[in-house]
Amino acid sequence: MRLAELSARSGVSVATIKYYLREGLLHPGRRVTATQAEYDEEHLRRLRLVRALIQVGRVPVSSAREVLAALQEEGLSRNRQLGTAVWALPHGPDPDNTDPATASARRTADELLGRLGWADDGAPEATRSAPPYRMLVTALTTLARLGYPCSVTDLEPYAHAMARIAVDDLDLVERHAPDEQVEAAVALTVLYEPVLLGLRRLAHAQESRRRYEEG
Amino acid sequence: MRLAELSARSGVSVATIKYYLREGLLHPGRRVTATQAEYDEEHLRRLRLVRALIQVGRVPVSSAREVLAALQEEGLSRNRQLGTAVWALPHGPDPDNTDPATASARRTADELLGRLGWADDGAPEATRSAPPYRMLVTALTTLARLGYPCSVTDLEPYAHAMARIAVDDLDLVERHAPDEQVEAAVALTVLYEPVLLGLRRLAHAQESRRRYEEG
Repeated sequence: MRLAELSARSGVSVATIKYYLREGLLHPGRRVTATQAEYDEEHLRRLRLVRALIQVGRVPVSSAREVLAALQEEGLSRNRQLGTAVWALPHGPDPDNTDPATASARRTADELLGRLGWADDGAPEATRSAPPYRMLVTALTTLARLGYPCSVTDLEPYAHAMARIAVDDLDLVERHAPDEQVEAAVALTVLYEPVLLGLRRLAHAQESRRRYEEG
Repeated sequence: MRLAELSARSGVSVATIKYYLREGLLHPGRRVTATQAEYDEEHLRRLRLVRALIQVGRVPVSSAREVLAALQEEGLSRNRQLGTAVWALPHGPDPDNTDPATASARRTADELLGRLGWADDGAPEATRSAPPYRMLVTALTTLARLGYPCSVTDLEPYAHAMARIAVDDLDLVERHAPDEQVEAAVALTVLYEPVLLGLRRLAHAQESRRRYEEG
């Protein structure tokens, strides 16, 4: 297909595709004339993944390039492919290790992961350096610093709810063909975040009406 | 208490408190000398709420002023107080009503809320103009436009999970004294978002290991 069709089918503008080509995020098409190139299904799949990372996930171009390189390693298990792509997503500020509240937040996070059996026994250090672990520690530190400390017991019901959600999430990913699953995992991880947060706020309104409104 | 103590107890810097005073977000202290004023517990509570809205919730100063004015209305029920403060939080871009995908996303959201019994029978239009409803519609529109349409059936398990979470959330809010609950609701709504999203990504990693890694 030509560039215009690649753009129409991917939903990415021609100018943006040209930018991705210049940045090496997309491999060049097969040149057919001096000014035209031909693209195939492989380009389309790659472009959808690049779009999921950059446009949807707001991953910086340089990180997206690293993710794409990592995904091309031979013999990478599906688990590692999904992890590589999803863990490249931005996860907010890292924990401030000079803050004493951070050490306490780490203990809470470690105890929680231990109780849940999520600590990846084979690689506990890998879990502790994972972006979502750092995201959790930063959030727990901020809560404590603002006067809302939360205990492992407070967190457990939230973690169990997220474990159930993760099953539904991976079921959604598995509806896609195997070679589209990495893109789907990135896109659905990011795109369902506002869905979940919007539903949570609507559920608050409902629960608040139930508790505090007359009749 | 003096300004320095108000700063220490609230965790808000003196410079920021002076800014809030100039902007009318905090009422002036009782003047004791030409250069010093005395602040009380009421200032401390108000300051914590302002901080929750602006520093934690990233609500613009002008919106924070409106929220504070709304909260002072006489006879406002607790439900309305919580809703007024929490619904002032930023909720991302509004739905693009010129996009046909938006109309379809609205139908999905309406059917979901109907099935859940969250439609606030007394005021269906109030639900449809609520910020979290608009947040949900925008997210569903984006999903559909990128090739990941989701049905009411896909969304139901997420909504049920969030309904359980809302019960835990309001239990946490109720641990605080009544005059601190509006601030707590704002702070916990915002501060638990990265906790939930971090736990979800950790749960993904766990579920992905379970499905795809060799024992």
